Amino acid sequence: MPTTLVGALVEGKPNYTTIAHVGITDPGSVSLGMNKMHFTNVGIRMNGTFSVNIPSVNMVEKTDYCGLISGKKLDKSRLFKTFFGTLRTAPMIEECPINMECKLTRTVDFPSHDIFIGEIVATYCDEAVLSDGIVDLAKVEPILFAMNDRSYWKLGGRFAKAWSVGNKLKKTK
Amino acid sequence: MPTTLVGALVEGKPNYTTIAHVGITDPGSVSLGMNKMHFTNVGIRMNGTFSVNIPSVNMVEKTDYCGLISGKKLDKSRLFKTFFGTLRTAPMIEECPINMECKLTRTVDFPSHDIFIGEIVATYCDEAVLSDGIVDLAKVEPILFAMNDRSYWKLGGRFAKAWSVGNKLKKTK
Repeated sequence: MPTTLVGALVEGKPNYTTIAHVGITDPGSVSLGMNKMHFTNVGIRMNGTFSVNIPSVNMVEKTDYCGLISGKKLDKSRLFKTFFGTLRTAPMIEECPINMECKLTRTVDFPSHDIFIGEIVATYCDEAVLSDGIVDLAKVEPILFAMNDRSYWKLGGRFAKAWSVGNKLKKTK
Repeated sequence: MPTTLVGALVEGKPNYTTIAHVGITDPGSVSLGMNKMHFTNVGIRMNGTFSVNIPSVNMVEKTDYCGLISGKKLDKSRLFKTFFGTLRTAPMIEECPINMECKLTRTVDFPSHDIFIGEIVATYCDEAVLSDGIVDLAKVEPILFAMNDRSYWKLGGRFAKAWSVGNKLKKTK
């Protein structure tokens, strides 16, 4: 899964936490599986907004650090340069090449987790990670996460076109 | 996102479709963002069960093909060798190195999509993709998917330990 930094305004301050248990629901919405212990959850519920920020491989220390310490103990607004967008209450991280600001539309309640589903209201992108006008993941260098070995992985190379490579089989069936 | 093949029994036959808009909710559950047009949705709703199969890079043609044609038009039970597990109604793909059989616990309704959330009841794994008893993603060679360039990507290398690499910053803050 892609490792993200989720942002919310908690007690008036930007707070960020590291979340890789994310998902895509319908094409315009994302989901976050967030343990109820997180300080960030308080802000998401209060404001009904959050951000999803995609850090690059060179941010791995800060990204991991952000998940090691709770916002209850550390003022994480000092870790990153924050900016705000149209929603005004979803703090985003300047250093991350991609940021999405989201409006909370549904919360699915699990015993230990809040599943926050948010509609993406705006996406911000560093021009340096574009190729021919679209996001180039080779330039983004996302931090991929695997729970089974508790490790971060890099993205490899693009190797096939979707809705295309399978056409070869169409002819033979 | 990881590309998966989602399986369900539809009209008594195993059917599979290609879904990369997946998610992790609480640690024991997965979510699928599935367009309501999919034939597979009918079986998931009817049986309350489904499978999530992880194909490897060498299965990219079949995986993509599976998303190009609807089960309404093609009997996809012929594409793969199917096996069943404890749930009896969640067909799984023998050729995929990892299979999860899931019990549908919640459905979140979107205008165009069903978000199916399922509890993972059992996970099956080819011994060939294990290293020291745990799944080694370098051996699984999952097919990663990006919507922005409609392409499949390979997984790169493991480069840092989670809940660990950030400790370096702890000492200096």
